[in-house]
Amino acid sequence: MRVSATLPDSELPRQWYNLAADIPHALFPPLAPDGSVLRPEQLSALFPETLIEQEASSQRWIDIPEEVLEILARWRPTPLVRARNLERLLNTPARIYYKNESVSPAGSHKPNTAVPQAYYNKLAGTKRLTTETGAGQWGSALSFASAQFGLECQVFMVRSSYDKKPYRKVMMQTWGASCVPSPSPRTRAGRKILEAQPDSPGSLGIAISEAVEAALEDSSGKTHYALGSVLNHVMLHQTIIGLEAKRQLALFGERAPDTIVACVGGGSNFAGLSFPFIKEKIDGADIDIVPVEPASCPSITRGLYAYDFGDTAGMTPLLPMYTLGHTFMPSPNHAGGLRYHGMAPLVSAAAKQGLLRPQSISQVECFSAAVQFARSEGIIVAPETSHAVAQVIREAVRAREEKREKVILFGLSGHGLLDLQGYAEYFAGDIANMSLSEDELNASLASLPKVGPAL
Amino acid sequence: MRVSATLPDSELPRQWYNLAADIPHALFPPLAPDGSVLRPEQLSALFPETLIEQEASSQRWIDIPEEVLEILARWRPTPLVRARNLERLLNTPARIYYKNESVSPAGSHKPNTAVPQAYYNKLAGTKRLTTETGAGQWGSALSFASAQFGLECQVFMVRSSYDKKPYRKVMMQTWGASCVPSPSPRTRAGRKILEAQPDSPGSLGIAISEAVEAALEDSSGKTHYALGSVLNHVMLHQTIIGLEAKRQLALFGERAPDTIVACVGGGSNFAGLSFPFIKEKIDGADIDIVPVEPASCPSITRGLYAYDFGDTAGMTPLLPMYTLGHTFMPSPNHAGGLRYHGMAPLVSAAAKQGLLRPQSISQVECFSAAVQFARSEGIIVAPETSHAVAQVIREAVRAREEKREKVILFGLSGHGLLDLQGYAEYFAGDIANMSLSEDELNASLASLPKVGPAL
Repeated sequence: MRVSATLPDSELPRQWYNLAADIPHALFPPLAPDGSVLRPEQLSALFPETLIEQEASSQRWIDIPEEVLEILARWRPTPLVRARNLERLLNTPARIYYKNESVSPAGSHKPNTAVPQAYYNKLAGTKRLTTETGAGQWGSALSFASAQFGLECQVFMVRSSYDKKPYRKVMMQTWGASCVPSPSPRTRAGRKILEAQPDSPGSLGIAISEAVEAALEDSSGKTHYALGSVLNHVMLHQTIIGLEAKRQLALFGERAPDTIVACVGGGSNFAGLSFPFIKEKIDGADIDIVPVEPASCPSITRGLYAYDFGDTAGMTPLLPMYTLGHTFMPSPNHAGGLRYHGMAPLVSAAAKQGLLRPQSISQVECFSAAVQFARSEGIIVAPETSHAVAQVIREAVRAREEKREKVILFGLSGHGLLDLQGYAEYFAGDIANMSLSEDELNASLASLPKVGPAL
Repeated sequence: MRVSATLPDSELPRQWYNLAADIPHALFPPLAPDGSVLRPEQLSALFPETLIEQEASSQRWIDIPEEVLEILARWRPTPLVRARNLERLLNTPARIYYKNESVSPAGSHKPNTAVPQAYYNKLAGTKRLTTETGAGQWGSALSFASAQFGLECQVFMVRSSYDKKPYRKVMMQTWGASCVPSPSPRTRAGRKILEAQPDSPGSLGIAISEAVEAALEDSSGKTHYALGSVLNHVMLHQTIIGLEAKRQLALFGERAPDTIVACVGGGSNFAGLSFPFIKEKIDGADIDIVPVEPASCPSITRGLYAYDFGDTAGMTPLLPMYTLGHTFMPSPNHAGGLRYHGMAPLVSAAAKQGLLRPQSISQVECFSAAVQFARSEGIIVAPETSHAVAQVIREAVRAREEKREKVILFGLSGHGLLDLQGYAEYFAGDIANMSLSEDELNASLASLPKVGPAL
C-alpha cells in the first residue's frame, strides 16, 4: 500500500502557473489612491522590475530561474502523503492526501516565494528588504532567503505574535535578519497607532504600513519591500506546490481530486495548492475547492468584494478584493498568519466568479482537529494549517455518512513547532472561540475608501 | 548543477544493515551485574523478543516490516543535499553533502528507531513505554511513534533540558505522552539523587535509571522500556540513513566519500550514517570516518574502553564501551543529546578496532559553525548537529589549504527549532566553553565497576 509519493528532483517543475491567463472574467486592475488605474512603474519604489512584470502578466507559464531552483531543490519536491492513519481513525471511505510543505528550512510554504523575491531583488541591485510578518512564518522565510543572497532583512512582526513567540525573532536573527515588534516607534504609521492605543496588539495591516514606509524612506533605492502573500506574483511562485501535487497524485493512480482544502489568510498557501487545479475546473473538471478562514477573521465568507487598501495606514495601492475593511483589527487568535483584513485579488476573483466554496471555522475546533492529526499522522501543524485539517475532518466524516469514496487533497502549509504556546493553552483549556459581531464588522467596513468603481 | 538527490519512495531500503556481521574482531558480550555473560532472556522484562533477537543478531541484513516502512515513507527517503553555498563561503575545493534527517515529524533521525521499537512492542502486547530524553529529540520521537500505534508513553527528561526547553513537553503532550523532569521523586533512583543534590541538573544516565525502574515496577509485563541510542538494535534501525545516502551519492556521480562526519553522543546518529560505509572500509575502501563529540563530554576521545553500566544507578547490564564512568555528570552544555557518559558498544568496537578517527570540539566553535551553516545553507541545526558542522568546516578549510578535491558527507541529524534558547545565548555572548579537568575525569572513572574482564 503506497503511503507517499516522492518525486525525484529531476521532476521539479521548471515553470510557474499563472491563473491570470485562464480566469474566466477579466481581473480588475489595481488603482492609485486617486482612483486612477495604477501604472506598473508606480510600484518601482517597492519592487524590482521583474516582479512588477510578473504582477501584471497574463502569460500562462513563467520560467523559474535556475538559481531559484537550486535553492528550492534542497527540500523540493515536497512529499505528498496519504493520511492512512487519519482515514482509519475517522473510519472514512475518503482517501485523504496532504502536500507537506513543513519540510522547508523555515517550516512552511513561504520560502517558495521568498527565494525568488530575494533572487530578483539581488539581480536588481537591492541591498536590503523590509517586510511584515504575522505568525512569523513569512518573516522567517524571507530572513532565510535574504541570507542565501547576502541581502539585509528587516521584519516588522505583529506584536501579539512577537510576544507569544519569542523564539521566532531568534530564528530570524540566526539568519542574520532583524525583527521589530509592530506597531513600533520607528515609523510614522507605527507612532500614530501607538499614540491612539499604546498597547495595540498590532495587525498585519499595520505591519505592512510600517514595512512599506521603511522601504520608501530609503531614497537611495537600495531598499525594497517584499510581501509574503496577496499579490499576483506571490500566488504565481506558490503554484509549484499544486504542480508537484498533480504529478504525485498520478503516481498514486488518482485522477483529479474531488475536494481540495487549504487554509487562507492573504491567499498564498491556498493559491499555491489550488490554482493549477482551478485551471482544470475551468476546463470542465468537477472539483470542490474550499478555502478555510478563521471565523474571527472571515474576509471571504463575511467581507465585501470592493477596492481597499492592503494596509491599515492606506499606503498601498487599492486592490480589488474581499475585505473586512483596512482598519479591521482581528482578534488575537493563534493563527497569526490568517489575521488579515483582505484577500489576494486572484483568490477573490476566483471566489467571486463561483469557482470556490469558502468556509470559516472557529479555533477550538481547529486545535482539536490538529491534535487528532498529530496523534494519527504525526505532524504537529501550524495553527493556520489546523483550519484545513478541521475542514478535512468535516469532509471525511461527511463522506462516511454518505458512504462516498472521494479523494480529498489538502495543503499542509507548515509545522507548528514555533507555535506550541497555542497548543499549551489549548491543553490548559485557555483557548476560546472569538466571534465577530455584525456591529464590529459594519464599523470596519465603513472605512472602505470611497474611490474606484463598485465591483 | 545538481544540488539534491531525492530518491523516489520506491527506492526506500527494505532491509537494515547489521555491522555486527562484519566487524573484524568479535564483539564482547554484555554482562550481568555479577560479571556472568548476560543471557538474552534477562532482558525480557524490558524489551520485546524481536528486539532482543536483533540485539544479539549477527545476521548481516534484517528485513524492515511493511508497517514500519508505511510510516517512515511519509518523510523518507530524506534529501541528500550538496552544500553549494557553504562550499562557496569557505572557498573550498571539497564537495560537501549532507543527509537531512531534520525533515521527520519530530525533527531528527530518532523516529527511524522509535517507529520499529513501538511497532515490535505493539506486536508483543505492550501497552506502555517508558524512556528517557536529553535534549528532547528522542522523547519527542518516541512520543510520536507511540501515538502511531496507540501506546502510552512516559518520558523522563533531563532537568537542565526540561527547564531550558519548555516547549518540548508541549510537543510530547500533543502526541499524547507525559513528560517528567529527571531526577524526579517518582522513582527510587530519582529520590536518591535528589536527596544528595536537590537542584541536580540531571543527566541521561540518571534519566535512564528512572525510566528502567518505571518499566520494571509494572509487574503485569505490559510496560516496556525503550532506549533511543547505545544498543545494537538501535544502531541497526538507524542504518537506513547511510543506506539511502550511498544510493544518493551515486546519483550525484560520486563513488565513496573520502570523509564522513557525524556527531556522536550515545552513537545512533553516527552509526546510522556511517555503518554501511564502515562495511566498505572493512572491504578495503579508503574512508576517513569521524565521530565528533563535545569537548565537555568526551567519551571516545578521553574515556576508557571498559565494562560499565549504561545508567547512573547501575540498573542496566554492563556494556563493553568507551566510558567516562557511569557516575559522570556532564556539564550543562546545550547539546543535551550528547551529554552521555558512555558510547554504543558497536561504535566503541569500531573505534577500538581502528576504524574511526574520533574528534571533540567545544561549544562556542560549534555555535559559530551552526550560524555560518544557517546563513549559507538555510537550516538551523540542533546543537548536537552543530558539532558535525564545526568538524566539516575544519575539514573543508583543510582541503582548501591542501588544494585537495575531496568528498565530505555529513549527517544533519536534526533541526534546532526547539533549541533556539541556545542560539539566543550564543548571540548574547552567554555561551562558554566547558572544560573537563583530569581530576574530574579520574574521579568519575574511579566509579567503573570492578567486574568483567579488562578489555
